[in-house]
Amino acid sequence: MNLTGWRTYLVTQSDRSAGRDTEEIVEAAIDGGVDAVQLREKGRSARDRYELGCRLREVTAAAEVPLLVNDRIDLAAAIDADGVHLGQSDLPIEIARERLGSDAIVGCSTSTVAEAEAAEAAGADYLGVGAVYGTASKDVPAEKNGIGTEPVATIADAVEIPVFGIGGITADNVRPVIEAGATGAAVISAITAADDPAAATAALDEVIADAR
Amino acid sequence: MNLTGWRTYLVTQSDRSAGRDTEEIVEAAIDGGVDAVQLREKGRSARDRYELGCRLREVTAAAEVPLLVNDRIDLAAAIDADGVHLGQSDLPIEIARERLGSDAIVGCSTSTVAEAEAAEAAGADYLGVGAVYGTASKDVPAEKNGIGTEPVATIADAVEIPVFGIGGITADNVRPVIEAGATGAAVISAITAADDPAAATAALDEVIADAR
Repeated sequence: MNLTGWRTYLVTQSDRSAGRDTEEIVEAAIDGGVDAVQLREKGRSARDRYELGCRLREVTAAAEVPLLVNDRIDLAAAIDADGVHLGQSDLPIEIARERLGSDAIVGCSTSTVAEAEAAEAAGADYLGVGAVYGTASKDVPAEKNGIGTEPVATIADAVEIPVFGIGGITADNVRPVIEAGATGAAVISAITAADDPAAATAALDEVIADAR
Repeated sequence: MNLTGWRTYLVTQSDRSAGRDTEEIVEAAIDGGVDAVQLREKGRSARDRYELGCRLREVTAAAEVPLLVNDRIDLAAAIDADGVHLGQSDLPIEIARERLGSDAIVGCSTSTVAEAEAAEAAGADYLGVGAVYGTASKDVPAEKNGIGTEPVATIADAVEIPVFGIGGITADNVRPVIEAGATGAAVISAITAADDPAAATAALDEVIADAR
């Protein structure tokens, strides 16, 4: 699966969406030109994620925008998502490939060259690298909260598959991430918490396109 | 899948196993005559559960004891488990059946007749009902912490599939659960925290057999 056309990748998190419905945010991001959407929603039950995922599948399918699911292969299959995004402590990439098939998009979070090379060898279609600028999304140890653009460059050099920067990225700070070699950026708050999520998506997308 | 032969059903939780390996507990429970094992391990990563699950699959397959997985259909498939046990906020039973096939064992946690009837209609093979005596396993609201044997009786009357009591059950208090109509008991601490898990399994099994 060639994902080099992806620039702006929205990761959903309802509790960071300023009280708005996640469907509404996703629709706005689609209007703004988003290239892919990931159902994240940490802290919510599998049933809640499934029900939201079914609704997001309708919205994204109508717009022909790929929908991925964070962590869970079964949930990805249940909502007929296009793929799954796995962290280092999730099920192995090989299992996702086996369960979801060769056409599925399988992404993997990595923060070192060793992790990145292992993920590529295991069949990942893309890598998420971060947290680039630090993020409020996870409780991460201080030393991992904001790795900067240097590891993005090192990892992008080490692998053939696209690399997406993640963590604290906005239209204002995305340029060095792309210049370091990232194909695009995965964001939560830069879109979900924006006053105008469509405009925020378009702004991010424009800077990424320009910086390439 | 007819599970009326199951009496004693071990649910694993490594942090309640007095520092012993879960494989060791499962092997002892098999020696004591356990009828089924569920990989639970709440709070551990999917990767950790997968690695432990692969080891438990070897131990249980060698003894021809069914192995189920709590919550996750993908993990059940990944370790070639015999089935999955779903809670009310997990993915729907129909999804598990679709993904794991007609031979898979699908169980469901229920605490009301409405939930029990819905689970049976959706294709569950058995029900877990509780917490019968209250349990240290979950943070449950006070009013649900210890529903007693009355709901076990009501639910066992309402459905055809086997009902297993769960929550605070030991060899000393299992008799009224079986007399209320439960087929058997699902336990964590009564086996995992016992000085002699094999003897504890055998003791529980003997009371259940006698009370039927």
